[in-house]
Amino acid sequence: MGRGAETRATILDEALELTSQLGLEGLSIGVLAKRTGMSKSGLYAHFESKEGLQCDVLQEAADRWAELVLRPALKEPRGLPRVRAIFERWMAWDTEAFGGGCPFMAAATDFDDREGPVRDAVVRHVRDALATLSRAVQLAVDEGHLRADASVEQVTFEIWGTLTGFQQYSRLLAHDGARDRAQRAFDALVDRYRA
Amino acid sequence: MGRGAETRATILDEALELTSQLGLEGLSIGVLAKRTGMSKSGLYAHFESKEGLQCDVLQEAADRWAELVLRPALKEPRGLPRVRAIFERWMAWDTEAFGGGCPFMAAATDFDDREGPVRDAVVRHVRDALATLSRAVQLAVDEGHLRADASVEQVTFEIWGTLTGFQQYSRLLAHDGARDRAQRAFDALVDRYRA
Repeated sequence: MGRGAETRATILDEALELTSQLGLEGLSIGVLAKRTGMSKSGLYAHFESKEGLQCDVLQEAADRWAELVLRPALKEPRGLPRVRAIFERWMAWDTEAFGGGCPFMAAATDFDDREGPVRDAVVRHVRDALATLSRAVQLAVDEGHLRADASVEQVTFEIWGTLTGFQQYSRLLAHDGARDRAQRAFDALVDRYRA
Repeated sequence: MGRGAETRATILDEALELTSQLGLEGLSIGVLAKRTGMSKSGLYAHFESKEGLQCDVLQEAADRWAELVLRPALKEPRGLPRVRAIFERWMAWDTEAFGGGCPFMAAATDFDDREGPVRDAVVRHVRDALATLSRAVQLAVDEGHLRADASVEQVTFEIWGTLTGFQQYSRLLAHDGARDRAQRAFDALVDRYRA
């Protein structure tokens, strides 16, 4: 990594943690300047605008998700083991990867009602993650682990609901039993669709 | 309603809609002054601080939830009909009650990592709503509609997960089939626990 790229990576690290904690709306060149001790003009050399910075942060978050959730899960055998690995690593992503939880969820409520490139980026990344989950579920049907008549889209929705419910229980409500509740819900879901 | 109370109600209406769309962090006396055409000093006569305003908005949201979700559901017979009514009205709350979705969820991601009275208020209101749902589920067990060995807390978590998943599908992803997916998930959940 060149020095410019290294500086950029350091800034994105900080920006990602800020987004996780305060949401994407709170992320600006000014706030980031304070946190990194860099000048605003120094930051503008790396990110052309607030929106550009926000989109870059989302791309960085997507790359991390691929690295922390998807890549290790792809080492599991296709079918149920892989779906389970995605689910469990996604729970860890929601609770352990950042100080303030999933950056996409932090961004989602801020931007779900606004038009523009940032909202488009949030939606695209979340859709990509759900498409990845959906493909893993489809493989579990193809492998004969889940019933042939299971609706892949319905299973995907139910796993996603379990993850979003888990995130609220663990982060917002600081519920001790969040992981256990979510794991039980996932297991029951799998049992219901098992071939 | 006296004139002061009426003005306050008008301001809270606007503040609630703003929160729904932009999140609670974006809500300030200054922003609200612009939206209502009132002076900042006029607003300070009704709300002593930004935090005070935010807490009042959350209380107003809780009152609306009670009015739009809980009160009509309490007219349904105790047991499954009431649980179903809460679920269905909660989906409507997430999508129809405000321009930008549930104000609590808009507030949650902004405040889930911060200490203070606003976070405490968000958590208290969400816990209250979940306790209400949980009591309805308990009554469904007591009435013999759900299995006696069903874990009330687990059922509550799973309904909540369905609602949070629904919210993301419908608001963020603008998914056409969100309501249908959520309704199917709820029906399957009820079937699984049915006595």
